[in-house]
Amino acid sequence: MQNMNLSFSFIGAGNVATHLAQALKNKGHKIVQIYSRTTSSAKTLANKVDAAFTKDIDQISDQADVYIVALKDSVFNEVLSQLDLSNKLLVHCSGSLPLNVLMPYSRNIGVLYPLQTFSKNRELDFQKVPVFVEANNKKDLEILCALANTISNNVSRMDSEKRKSLHVAAVMACNFSNHFYAMAAEYLNSKEIAFDVLRPLIEETAQKVQELMPKDAQTGPAIRFDTNIIDKHLEALSEFPSYQNLYNSISQSIFEYHKEKQ
Amino acid sequence: MQNMNLSFSFIGAGNVATHLAQALKNKGHKIVQIYSRTTSSAKTLANKVDAAFTKDIDQISDQADVYIVALKDSVFNEVLSQLDLSNKLLVHCSGSLPLNVLMPYSRNIGVLYPLQTFSKNRELDFQKVPVFVEANNKKDLEILCALANTISNNVSRMDSEKRKSLHVAAVMACNFSNHFYAMAAEYLNSKEIAFDVLRPLIEETAQKVQELMPKDAQTGPAIRFDTNIIDKHLEALSEFPSYQNLYNSISQSIFEYHKEKQ
Repeated sequence: MQNMNLSFSFIGAGNVATHLAQALKNKGHKIVQIYSRTTSSAKTLANKVDAAFTKDIDQISDQADVYIVALKDSVFNEVLSQLDLSNKLLVHCSGSLPLNVLMPYSRNIGVLYPLQTFSKNRELDFQKVPVFVEANNKKDLEILCALANTISNNVSRMDSEKRKSLHVAAVMACNFSNHFYAMAAEYLNSKEIAFDVLRPLIEETAQKVQELMPKDAQTGPAIRFDTNIIDKHLEALSEFPSYQNLYNSISQSIFEYHKEKQ
Repeated sequence: MQNMNLSFSFIGAGNVATHLAQALKNKGHKIVQIYSRTTSSAKTLANKVDAAFTKDIDQISDQADVYIVALKDSVFNEVLSQLDLSNKLLVHCSGSLPLNVLMPYSRNIGVLYPLQTFSKNRELDFQKVPVFVEANNKKDLEILCALANTISNNVSRMDSEKRKSLHVAAVMACNFSNHFYAMAAEYLNSKEIAFDVLRPLIEETAQKVQELMPKDAQTGPAIRFDTNIIDKHLEALSEFPSYQNLYNSISQSIFEYHKEKQ
């Protein structure tokens, strides 16, 4: 199945499309065309994967076998309703959308959800990205599994309901963590301390839970709600009232969580 | 200065004491004695670093040159007020306590603050741990800098005020992030999904900010407050009302933060 001889077009040229298209191209798959509402995004990705590009919906080519939709959920239907892809394998990459959002647009539908935080200008090893696949029929599920296995060593099947749960958890573990890095950076900057000093701590915090479960890796004053420290920290955040509120509610949450676990 | 011929005793045998004592021992420093209120903690660490141990305050030996206090802030004064260490170099390891909390107890006082998340049963490379030192006189500051440089490649001087700010930032970047890993794990467990699937995402989230600033690494629905996704996630968390509240307030915070940055 390594040489599948399938060709791909991308509807969307954002972070997910950029990494997925490059991973496919790197493994020898043909990318026919990139569509994006902005020419520069379409062109940038098209150049990376040796594909044509367009910003016009009516110029989307019918020459690919598989159409990968990597659009924001909010414009999903607006774009797809203008296309006739009813004979194509139509695949989306969204954690939060169920498979059946594609039902109005094709008989052959699937999902290929790469669980990772993608930024356009950051390279990563796609082989290590967990990929979750789903399809509305056995043949396409096999095709998508085989396809995903050409770009990742970590492929699983997962239905829409579980995928939505996984997406919620991913937002908490990734997007929220990064926001606390950002808040810490902002606060340090106000005190003229370089963010650099936190980098080893951030790295080790993530490395610990590669082996431990997070509940066993927790450290810090909130576990026992050490008011000696927490009150000082709340006072230290007095110029950042919104951070103060979050500091307080998350410390409470940590305390409650660990009280229950004991 | 590599062979400093200083000997050390530890007041406290928790996570920080365990890692610091082992780092010192590994670099050839002599550890005289470990004190802890619980014999088993004192003994466990003493065995690791070839030292004596005691749980009795009045049995704390006067044979060491440097006494490293690694106690919870809440018992700090209770323990130190029972000792006479006025002729010793007395050092604490706390991010949140100023240097001068040691003033009642010795003429020669300092701080050696290792900025890392330490768990007893997890090994780490202490050479990469940022260590921040402070002292009340030039000679002891030089001694502590030289000492810290024997165990870490990342030693800086920092005063008490900045150290407190750094500690606040560390709690946000480390303890709070880990709590979101824990919440994600708990939620996934309730949906019968293994935490394993999130590990590559957590690792990459931390790796991204080793190079990027966190504001440039942020991804996810909250940046543009994508209500299509956020409302679904809030509904998906309906059985976890406390997580729902945090999800909402952090998403708001991410949105406000990125709106201001644009």
